[in-house]
Amino acid sequence: MAPRPTPADKFSFGLWTVGWQARDPFGDATRPELDAVEAVHRLAELGAYGITFHDDDLLPFGANAATRDAHLTRFRRALDETGMVVPMVTSNLFTHPVFKDGGFTSNDRDARRYALRKALRAVDLAAELGAGTFVLWGGREGAEYDLAKDVRAALDRYREAVDLLCQYVVAQGYELRFAIEPKPNEPRGDILLPTVGHALAFIATLARPELVGLNPEVGHEQMAGLNFVHGIAQALWQGKLFHLDLNGQRGVKYDQDLVFGHGDLLNAFALVDLLENGGPGGGPAYDGPRHFDYKPSRTEDRTGVWASAEANMRTYLLLKERAAAFRADPEVTAALAMSRVDELTTPTLAPGETHAGLRADRTAFEEYDVTAAGARGYHFVRLNQLAVEHLLGAR
Amino acid sequence: MAPRPTPADKFSFGLWTVGWQARDPFGDATRPELDAVEAVHRLAELGAYGITFHDDDLLPFGANAATRDAHLTRFRRALDETGMVVPMVTSNLFTHPVFKDGGFTSNDRDARRYALRKALRAVDLAAELGAGTFVLWGGREGAEYDLAKDVRAALDRYREAVDLLCQYVVAQGYELRFAIEPKPNEPRGDILLPTVGHALAFIATLARPELVGLNPEVGHEQMAGLNFVHGIAQALWQGKLFHLDLNGQRGVKYDQDLVFGHGDLLNAFALVDLLENGGPGGGPAYDGPRHFDYKPSRTEDRTGVWASAEANMRTYLLLKERAAAFRADPEVTAALAMSRVDELTTPTLAPGETHAGLRADRTAFEEYDVTAAGARGYHFVRLNQLAVEHLLGAR
Amino acid sequence: MAPRPTPADKFSFGLWTVGWQARDPFGDATRPELDAVEAVHRLAELGAYGITFHDDDLLPFGANAATRDAHLTRFRRALDETGMVVPMVTSNLFTHPVFKDGGFTSNDRDARRYALRKALRAVDLAAELGAGTFVLWGGREGAEYDLAKDVRAALDRYREAVDLLCQYVVAQGYELRFAIEPKPNEPRGDILLPTVGHALAFIATLARPELVGLNPEVGHEQMAGLNFVHGIAQALWQGKLFHLDLNGQRGVKYDQDLVFGHGDLLNAFALVDLLENGGPGGGPAYDGPRHFDYKPSRTEDRTGVWASAEANMRTYLLLKERAAAFRADPEVTAALAMSRVDELTTPTLAPGETHAGLRADRTAFEEYDVTAAGARGYHFVRLNQLAVEHLLGAR
Amino acid sequence: MAPRPTPADKFSFGLWTVGWQARDPFGDATRPELDAVEAVHRLAELGAYGITFHDDDLLPFGANAATRDAHLTRFRRALDETGMVVPMVTSNLFTHPVFKDGGFTSNDRDARRYALRKALRAVDLAAELGAGTFVLWGGREGAEYDLAKDVRAALDRYREAVDLLCQYVVAQGYELRFAIEPKPNEPRGDILLPTVGHALAFIATLARPELVGLNPEVGHEQMAGLNFVHGIAQALWQGKLFHLDLNGQRGVKYDQDLVFGHGDLLNAFALVDLLENGGPGGGPAYDGPRHFDYKPSRTEDRTGVWASAEANMRTYLLLKERAAAFRADPEVTAALAMSRVDELTTPTLAPGETHAGLRADRTAFEEYDVTAAGARGYHFVRLNQLAVEHLLGAR
Repeated sequence: MAPRPTPADKFSFGLWTVGWQARDPFGDATRPELDAVEAVHRLAELGAYGITFHDDDLLPFGANAATRDAHLTRFRRALDETGMVVPMVTSNLFTHPVFKDGGFTSNDRDARRYALRKALRAVDLAAELGAGTFVLWGGREGAEYDLAKDVRAALDRYREAVDLLCQYVVAQGYELRFAIEPKPNEPRGDILLPTVGHALAFIATLARPELVGLNPEVGHEQMAGLNFVHGIAQALWQGKLFHLDLNGQRGVKYDQDLVFGHGDLLNAFALVDLLENGGPGGGPAYDGPRHFDYKPSRTEDRTGVWASAEANMRTYLLLKERAAAFRADPEVTAALAMSRVDELTTPTLAPGETHAGLRADRTAFEEYDVTAAGARGYHFVRLNQLAVEHLLGAR
Repeated sequence: MAPRPTPADKFSFGLWTVGWQARDPFGDATRPELDAVEAVHRLAELGAYGITFHDDDLLPFGANAATRDAHLTRFRRALDETGMVVPMVTSNLFTHPVFKDGGFTSNDRDARRYALRKALRAVDLAAELGAGTFVLWGGREGAEYDLAKDVRAALDRYREAVDLLCQYVVAQGYELRFAIEPKPNEPRGDILLPTVGHALAFIATLARPELVGLNPEVGHEQMAGLNFVHGIAQALWQGKLFHLDLNGQRGVKYDQDLVFGHGDLLNAFALVDLLENGGPGGGPAYDGPRHFDYKPSRTEDRTGVWASAEANMRTYLLLKERAAAFRADPEVTAALAMSRVDELTTPTLAPGETHAGLRADRTAFEEYDVTAAGARGYHFVRLNQLAVEHLLGAR
Repeated sequence: MAPRPTPADKFSFGLWTVGWQARDPFGDATRPELDAVEAVHRLAELGAYGITFHDDDLLPFGANAATRDAHLTRFRRALDETGMVVPMVTSNLFTHPVFKDGGFTSNDRDARRYALRKALRAVDLAAELGAGTFVLWGGREGAEYDLAKDVRAALDRYREAVDLLCQYVVAQGYELRFAIEPKPNEPRGDILLPTVGHALAFIATLARPELVGLNPEVGHEQMAGLNFVHGIAQALWQGKLFHLDLNGQRGVKYDQDLVFGHGDLLNAFALVDLLENGGPGGGPAYDGPRHFDYKPSRTEDRTGVWASAEANMRTYLLLKERAAAFRADPEVTAALAMSRVDELTTPTLAPGETHAGLRADRTAFEEYDVTAAGARGYHFVRLNQLAVEHLLGAR
Repeated sequence: MAPRPTPADKFSFGLWTVGWQARDPFGDATRPELDAVEAVHRLAELGAYGITFHDDDLLPFGANAATRDAHLTRFRRALDETGMVVPMVTSNLFTHPVFKDGGFTSNDRDARRYALRKALRAVDLAAELGAGTFVLWGGREGAEYDLAKDVRAALDRYREAVDLLCQYVVAQGYELRFAIEPKPNEPRGDILLPTVGHALAFIATLARPELVGLNPEVGHEQMAGLNFVHGIAQALWQGKLFHLDLNGQRGVKYDQDLVFGHGDLLNAFALVDLLENGGPGGGPAYDGPRHFDYKPSRTEDRTGVWASAEANMRTYLLLKERAAAFRADPEVTAALAMSRVDELTTPTLAPGETHAGLRADRTAFEEYDVTAAGARGYHFVRLNQLAVEHLLGAR
């Protein structure tokens, strides 16, 4: 049986996920609007600990101060009643037509200034609600036509924008870090900072790189055919896994936002193993929210919405159980050793060895039996089969 | 008519390209071995200025000193006779079975030490031949199975290796820089540093990042569905375009290594425009070798090999002509202005403006007519159509 | 200069293309509604000969008889005033929530009956307006979850529906044929009849296969990484190219619906060559409408909409010119012969030869010099380079 | 624990799978040749019932009669000793350079004649060994360059070849059927008959379609991003699933040939469910060999080869167990009903109903509450979650 989620599991959901009305490029909405207050209560009942949102999810675009306050008051009350937290907030810089060529990198300077102002307001909102992370998904920062966008200028403007946001949180004394969410395409033909790698590289150019990390999403990396676990590992390696978006994707196609585990299940298993057991001593390698950014399929009614929310958490917890069993299995331990997985943590050079020492070591080259070494097996298939059988609950 | 290539065009070819015997996963070689000396002479006749190679392309794997010297002497003589240069050298850390789990990141530490030694020897060879760039393509650095490779440990070892190589060239006083070549997959299921972005991010973690840049390849980025021009732009933006591999790829599939321009022709046009006209004042944004890393199709005989080599250069020069005409066309200038392409180079903030100033500017938000701004057109399709018509030679 | 389109070119546009308001999965509409009458007039002015539509594009979903008549009368008048024709009509079985699990193959039988009724009404409308083709795009016929759809039952229902439609047009005496439009995914995770091949195979199982052919779309095949020209060739070979949708797509990603030629330009060139010069004696292989099913990018205003409409036709005509020059070039003729392209039209068996004859022919096997044959070159790269240079207008 | 395979499970392996020496486009062989006799014995010990091969796997290309006989005698003896059968034979028309532009569709007519002769000899061999299926994988039937291959002529030649093979088996009285194996690309840029659909469509044009069916391969459909279960379902629906190739693929990339289940595990689960429980009354929908066409990874030694062979069968049997439990679970039965999966088997028309009847039924359209119908949920996510949890062994 699947274990029941509890707040200690740190599961959070975007308000726009359970609240998605299921309008798609070829179809009208199939579900009515969901009240944010109801979302808080239902998610709390299901065992989530947090809810996240874009500014416009909670406070209607262009609303006046009174309307904003009214919405915010109701929402805060729901948080208080349920104990739910708001670990992350973000700003919608993609829905309104003004952002059609981007927010921070629109060719139109006035649109860029407007985007920055909107983002700064959302930063205030995030701070006000105690969020620790502010996500930057630049879904419209991109182009369809190679000669219509000066990509280097766009990256200048992107950096200018993120630097400004960082200066602002420092100036305000906010305890808030930024997390860039990469995506390769859709809704733009090509989006800037398309993968975990491009965003990591960009961060290294910022004025305050320590304030900016990543919010990688399962499906976004998989839309480029990239291995999500590899991306997360590099983000962790560079100290930049500030937040993450869990969902499911079935290959290189449009952004599906399926339930976590309803896509590449083997990769999801390895991901949970990395997050939960990849830290020093085998503990968690990541202790932030397990955030679901998925869409309940357009075929579902409200009942199906909540069933799908629950499914995300159940699958995560089942994979966590399977990963724990995998790590505890002595056959797995032996197989990992056979595959020399651990040997990779040993530096290639001996302690204190330099290039001179290496070059002087005849056993490393001149006397190395390269033929024999090439004939040795790594036994990776068997190790993977053990993973599959643990995943299937067959061990 | 296509202009004739000259050494001033800086065209270079890998010895392994024209020398490819056309063995593929499902077929035996269709062409005999090509003598490196013949390659130098023929490429020189066709107008190339340089030739590049993996250590094992020139000097047979495991050859003794006498054999190596004999090969090297003949090769140097051919260079002298033709005036051809060797702008780049690299080491083959992927063909021999000893590298089956990688070179610098094999789970087997002895294999890693052997790989480092082999690379150091190739660095010596590169310096000896006056190459300015040493390419690192880690084609075997990767995995098929998520739980069989500790990616963070692998990145530690990768960094250890590249740091060692950098220390070595500094210690030796070589005028040599390294260029990492990303690739998402093939021959491994997933390769580490899969894209331009991941490699850029990795470089930022090195001890001597100034010595390490990129060697992006057209087809490798396109195998992940990424826009090659965007990748090159980000590499230029980060000052890391040290070298590049030109070829053709038709979408997300196996690595095709077609002739440059025989894949996504529109993207190739934008690439040549960026390289040739993207610099300050409209001059070249990149002045290194225009290096072709392609494979003459398996259906070709030796005649076809040389025809294909020529085709790479002809297409490049034709695209250069088309790009020059595009930039010189007043209609294009007007269209770029209509699309506000240049406006993106203007900072979003006014000179000296801070977040406080921006927040105080009511015209940027409170008084901004967001509806009117959202209704304005960017005229990108017309601009792109001008590009298409210039590409077609119809303007 | 690009030639000007005329009605003789048989260019047609979907009303939903120029009329697209640019609502996408992440953004609101950026353009106002376009009146169908204006569309007819503007397209006529630009040189188109036809306009096509979904029932709901012209006649609002659920409109009463009076409203329908009013719309239809205005539309017919515009046709009369401009001489524009309606070569194709189709039914929208995907936008309304009732179709969320499909039209003809919804798990809900009542929804299927409703879909059939709606389609029959649209068939009447098509006949009334003199359309020769009724397109069936089953965009919602599919699934996200493998165990939630009985695919064989779905194909039974699909066949039942198409058979019924055929019976109806025969019974009514309509001069109307059906054209199935394949698509691999989006908006469903997997769509039934995902490629030209699957749809051709399905047609062979119908009661009246002669009434049903294909409406292949450039981008739809390319979303599966398939070669559109190969698909069109197989459709022609099976006598089933009843209609086609021209547009542009940049690789395996979401459905982009770019302007024709703004995607894979080389493939577009080969396509136009096949359509225009692939018939017996070198004439057209297809004489139906050149129908554009594209979307003016969301960044465009109304001016950009018409510029994009024009761009489709200009590119087609330029490619037609290039293809004519390619076919007329004696160097190309010689290169085709060198590549033995024409030799493939010669049957492999001699006239009257059977397997017995072939087996008795020792020159075909026992005495065949397989090594020499394997060494011969096909010179395909040179032929392709000639195509590239013709495409670039450089010959 | 995984159940042990027995001959009743009808598991078969290609000799070229366990015998693959692991030469890839970037690497030399890592394993020695495997004797066919050893392969037969080891596979028999592991529980397989059959072995399959290309002519050249068993009998060296170009071997004289004596050599062929010697090999055949030893092989037959191994079969006799083990009780192993040969359910399928095929001909290698792709490795030798003579086939570089194809076998049946090479532009070179002599090469085509040679290919036909080679195939006819392999057909004799198949019959001699009692195989029921002869697979046709046209891996070289294709092109890289759109203008270098007349696809319609190629399809003519393809049909000519398959028709000849059919005439031959009829003339010889062989109990042998043909199974075409589609693949979208690799080693050619585009392969003819790229998907299950295209091959099904082609079969309908043959002189003896009843003798020709399909041999779909998991990874080949997935290389085009297509749903393998959907493809198999359409093949079954058209009565054409004559054989199949089980393996694993991780998305749209080069042909990986991983162990079955080491790719898209959810799709593999649905596949086994379809094969085992999709027949009338819930029995098997397919009773042919469960044939594995995979490659033991290049990192594996001989021990790893056999471990990987075993892994294929273990995973299949585990998935079969999970699928049986899924079908037996009353919660699943209820969920399937909630999702109306079974309702799709009910014809859309009532018994005897025609278009006239449907059009007269006001409840189907005029009185149908389309809004209410659009609001109903299909509960597909919950059903899929039940599948995931059964797959994970958690129910």
